[in-house]
Amino acid sequence: MMFASDNTGPVHPAIMASVMAVNDGYAMPYGNDAVTRDARAAVRTLFEAPDAAVEFVATGSVANALALACLAKPWDGVFCHRIAHVEEDECGAPDFYSGAKTILIDGADAKVTPEALDEAILECKDRGVHGAQPGPVTITNITERGTVYSLDEIRAITGVARAHGLATHLDGARFANACAALGCTPAEMTWKAGIDAVSFGGTKNGCMGVEAVVLFDPAKGRELELRRKRGGHLFSKHRYLSAQMATYCDGDLWLRMAEAANARLAQVVQGLARVPGAELAHPAAGNLAFIDVPRGAHRRAFEAGAKYYLFPGNALEAGPDDQPVRCRIVCDWSKTSEEIGRLLDAWVG
Amino acid sequence: MMFASDNTGPVHPAIMASVMAVNDGYAMPYGNDAVTRDARAAVRTLFEAPDAAVEFVATGSVANALALACLAKPWDGVFCHRIAHVEEDECGAPDFYSGAKTILIDGADAKVTPEALDEAILECKDRGVHGAQPGPVTITNITERGTVYSLDEIRAITGVARAHGLATHLDGARFANACAALGCTPAEMTWKAGIDAVSFGGTKNGCMGVEAVVLFDPAKGRELELRRKRGGHLFSKHRYLSAQMATYCDGDLWLRMAEAANARLAQVVQGLARVPGAELAHPAAGNLAFIDVPRGAHRRAFEAGAKYYLFPGNALEAGPDDQPVRCRIVCDWSKTSEEIGRLLDAWVG
Amino acid sequence: MMFASDNTGPVHPAIMASVMAVNDGYAMPYGNDAVTRDARAAVRTLFEAPDAAVEFVATGSVANALALACLAKPWDGVFCHRIAHVEEDECGAPDFYSGAKTILIDGADAKVTPEALDEAILECKDRGVHGAQPGPVTITNITERGTVYSLDEIRAITGVARAHGLATHLDGARFANACAALGCTPAEMTWKAGIDAVSFGGTKNGCMGVEAVVLFDPAKGRELELRRKRGGHLFSKHRYLSAQMATYCDGDLWLRMAEAANARLAQVVQGLARVPGAELAHPAAGNLAFIDVPRGAHRRAFEAGAKYYLFPGNALEAGPDDQPVRCRIVCDWSKTSEEIGRLLDAWVG
Amino acid sequence: MMFASDNTGPVHPAIMASVMAVNDGYAMPYGNDAVTRDARAAVRTLFEAPDAAVEFVATGSVANALALACLAKPWDGVFCHRIAHVEEDECGAPDFYSGAKTILIDGADAKVTPEALDEAILECKDRGVHGAQPGPVTITNITERGTVYSLDEIRAITGVARAHGLATHLDGARFANACAALGCTPAEMTWKAGIDAVSFGGTKNGCMGVEAVVLFDPAKGRELELRRKRGGHLFSKHRYLSAQMATYCDGDLWLRMAEAANARLAQVVQGLARVPGAELAHPAAGNLAFIDVPRGAHRRAFEAGAKYYLFPGNALEAGPDDQPVRCRIVCDWSKTSEEIGRLLDAWVG
Repeated sequence: MMFASDNTGPVHPAIMASVMAVNDGYAMPYGNDAVTRDARAAVRTLFEAPDAAVEFVATGSVANALALACLAKPWDGVFCHRIAHVEEDECGAPDFYSGAKTILIDGADAKVTPEALDEAILECKDRGVHGAQPGPVTITNITERGTVYSLDEIRAITGVARAHGLATHLDGARFANACAALGCTPAEMTWKAGIDAVSFGGTKNGCMGVEAVVLFDPAKGRELELRRKRGGHLFSKHRYLSAQMATYCDGDLWLRMAEAANARLAQVVQGLARVPGAELAHPAAGNLAFIDVPRGAHRRAFEAGAKYYLFPGNALEAGPDDQPVRCRIVCDWSKTSEEIGRLLDAWVG
Repeated sequence: MMFASDNTGPVHPAIMASVMAVNDGYAMPYGNDAVTRDARAAVRTLFEAPDAAVEFVATGSVANALALACLAKPWDGVFCHRIAHVEEDECGAPDFYSGAKTILIDGADAKVTPEALDEAILECKDRGVHGAQPGPVTITNITERGTVYSLDEIRAITGVARAHGLATHLDGARFANACAALGCTPAEMTWKAGIDAVSFGGTKNGCMGVEAVVLFDPAKGRELELRRKRGGHLFSKHRYLSAQMATYCDGDLWLRMAEAANARLAQVVQGLARVPGAELAHPAAGNLAFIDVPRGAHRRAFEAGAKYYLFPGNALEAGPDDQPVRCRIVCDWSKTSEEIGRLLDAWVG
Repeated sequence: MMFASDNTGPVHPAIMASVMAVNDGYAMPYGNDAVTRDARAAVRTLFEAPDAAVEFVATGSVANALALACLAKPWDGVFCHRIAHVEEDECGAPDFYSGAKTILIDGADAKVTPEALDEAILECKDRGVHGAQPGPVTITNITERGTVYSLDEIRAITGVARAHGLATHLDGARFANACAALGCTPAEMTWKAGIDAVSFGGTKNGCMGVEAVVLFDPAKGRELELRRKRGGHLFSKHRYLSAQMATYCDGDLWLRMAEAANARLAQVVQGLARVPGAELAHPAAGNLAFIDVPRGAHRRAFEAGAKYYLFPGNALEAGPDDQPVRCRIVCDWSKTSEEIGRLLDAWVG
Repeated sequence: MMFASDNTGPVHPAIMASVMAVNDGYAMPYGNDAVTRDARAAVRTLFEAPDAAVEFVATGSVANALALACLAKPWDGVFCHRIAHVEEDECGAPDFYSGAKTILIDGADAKVTPEALDEAILECKDRGVHGAQPGPVTITNITERGTVYSLDEIRAITGVARAHGLATHLDGARFANACAALGCTPAEMTWKAGIDAVSFGGTKNGCMGVEAVVLFDPAKGRELELRRKRGGHLFSKHRYLSAQMATYCDGDLWLRMAEAANARLAQVVQGLARVPGAELAHPAAGNLAFIDVPRGAHRRAFEAGAKYYLFPGNALEAGPDDQPVRCRIVCDWSKTSEEIGRLLDAWVG
């Protein structure tokens, strides 16, 4: 009953097998190997973007940081939601790589609204040379609160950005879960909706540690390579990184794992109906949800061995049993229906 | 007959097995897991440094960059050999992470001499506020030319550094090969010889991709953690990184692989006696050597399937068969005596 | 009737004379001259801080950037008000110099509240290694909206900062105006109230272009010197910079100019009583005020030759005459009572 | 008898008068004033470059840093002479502003040779993604050793750079002295010879503190403005900076001052014939010379009140009187023939 994050679970056996499989003989380093070539091709195929620049890194933070650094100038502002991962959870990596600074946008359910974005850009422009210049926009799908931007919503945001001559990046740490939620293709959620750059996450979705940075403007490819190297992120034994991504893309494994994770989360959400006092804090579309559950229910779940985050972290130390305490529940591909049942049972009491 | 680099070969089966072994169930992310705790402890034990700050990263470039960033101020000069890996092969990663700039020191066989170092530091000091300030010194062992610093030589360099109040970093991408060559312990080659920070390499020596940054001043530990996170180098599924290092340290596997690699290289060097016109360019102490071999001999080796780097890269395109052309031969743990024999046979003709 | 900013006016004749006076013969460059020594001593005397590190620069932006860079680590958050000059008007200079990122605090009248600051720091701490670390706090006095922090308010803020082990910087672009408003000494408004670093502005208050960076911890002095040099801000012909500051401090010229500017602004504020529909947007304590004035009144003032900023800038293009439009009025030392009278007359109509 | 540097002397009276002259009434800040517009136009006229981007800053270090930052990418190498001012005397400002790292080129008399430059660029290219990428070239005229690049030499260097697709910057801290030495126009020494960016120095040549950054590609203008602002180098009371440059350009004042300075230095050089044991260390073309003079002669000059730098700085502490000790003699516009005579007399003894 580990629901703390989708990075706590095991690597999918097929991914693991692919890593074992490339451990045979010799291969040229630094991505100059056949496995990497194939993995890159697989990502391009998946995105229906035969010319896209595609490089692999091992963490989502650096995928975001590199993508944004390729879109931003050092004096730019990067528009993101107030609680975006790039703002709150990467210790300033995007600022470090790009030199740019974040400009925070409000919006319900962790979603940037086109209106708020437009206003922030205009305010930026008003300052002339004195303020940060309008730079790229970045949104996260599935968002940090478990909600999803619809294709229309994405298009509205990229529309505002383009009207101001700005590029848009998609933080896809949970890209697959968003595709699964929307029932759309990777191309539909990205370049067909006006997105210029994507962090296509594998790590939270059954890989060991691999993300693809996808830049739809191939002219940015060399810069991406150099920024990655300069950041110390170019793997020498690159095939072990690439093998994960190749298998991840193969036969829709990426999508099937996300569908499984989303289904388990949906089971949690549906089960809330039978948990007295439980309430969803934000519409849950993918594989994570923020839920208000009475303190006593949390106590029972924790005693039964469940693990997940509470806000605040020490909420169980004291307080009435019937008071709601917010928690975050995340499912990965490996969660079972039976586990979800046990969690709900514990909450029900 | 792949001798291009020690990062072209396979991962040692024991390392690979350890990665498979941790793929079981759930573990807290970002290094808050038991495997990481054990791996950190194993490194501390290996270095006889129970208090050292120890963190793991996936590439040697970032290990160097982080270690140097923890030692240098942004306005410092970092003293290194003219052909140091940090200068030539990391696309400026150490400069990017630290803000500091390299100050290049000459010396035969890729080795900084204490005299040249002292002179460079004094020159730096002469410039007052106008030039880069004297900052940390970094040396590489096994060096980039395959030579080794003796313990006396290391002590002489750290002695100069300390006399000026400066710290010294050891780039140990081939740390194990140096220990094997010197017959010394990790502690003897580092803190007992005055070294303050180490990049303890695993990737070139049978791991998939793991290096330990070891700072003997534990007060630097928090900075190291934050710099790693800010660089996008903190793995979420950290156990897969740590497992490699734990196994690497276990039962002297690190040393045994290095000894095997060094032995194969020694076999190459010894065999040169029977290759007409072949000559070692620098004393070869570890697992790599720069060797002058007649062009014709290279042609035969390449035809027989050997792979290694020539300088210049296009040296075989034209030129007399008996003219010496420099090459670099690198052995890793997986090389066999038989392979070496075939290489030598090809060279002999 | 130029009220656009306090940097549009002339340099005080005494300051100008001092610049002329040092243009005689030769002096060692880079601050190694007697004029600089004396100016530094004068600032230390003014602040009753005989050991403070004091360096001069030519712009307020870099004074702030250098001071903050000496207090912050690259991975820190710098806490400031949402509309702070360091956030909105310096094109990211503080981020560039420090590597740190701003964390924005709300508060009425452009003033950070201790409660909001404490909350922001705690939120920061909650994120562990994942978010920006709690770094220095910076406040502006006179604020960007013309209000003033009382000594009690400053102490409350530095108290929160110190309780969390954080330093506090005072952006004193209008330092003198704040002292004049509070009737306190520079020491009382700074180190006696818990402030660690000050940008002591001269440029907006009758100088040609000089600001003193004052760090009360003398151990930071060398870092300040090096950061200034590295930023390209160390003047070679330094005496012309220092002469301004020496004269500025001499015989309370700094204070007398600020008192004059504040008095003129007070005259504007008092005169609002006779301007129908005019209203002060924030309590005006120093030499600038944000005022809502009917559109028609602005039209009359502009026709009469007044110059000042409107929000939005194009507010006069269209709209009813009786609708209030916000403006910013700033007075410097050179404004006359008669000019203020004319502005008010034009508004009254 | 102050010969330590050309930044120790007084500001030319005409320049000083122009600063006084603009201290009248009000002007919009940040360069949005008529004086700045005129000064910019004057520089464009001087360089016969009506479209060039031109901005003013107060120090030569930041002029170089900004110009190079506009030409270099963060991962580039900047090719310069081993003893270039950008390498040795700016505390890393160019690295800080650009992110790039210097690559040092050897060459007699502080002059980069086209051959050495070509070799360094090729070596850089050989490293692929692993090393710094080939970036801009920067040369200094008059050089740091007082020698001059001829127009042919400049063309040879820019020719190599262009053949590799690289831009060239001219550090013109002593630009006027070089023009005076070569008898050429600013255009001839720059864009007509293939130069892309210039630091056009005023400070060392009779100004108080002003340098023009000139980028011949106007498309770079906005970036230059933003980099300047972000570096904290945009003056609010900008007219006082611009007035200097306007007057400097007016009626060839810039050239006349340089001619005067060069003539005085030439007088020193010619006088060496009568100083026993004195010898010029590098061909002296402008307003500075490195000269070997017997220790005893230095002693006499210092006793007579002369001031200049010796190498090493403590050379007079001990040693035989007839041993040559190197010194640097620099003349500015204000030096008199009589002063030179006294220096030579003291050396002659």
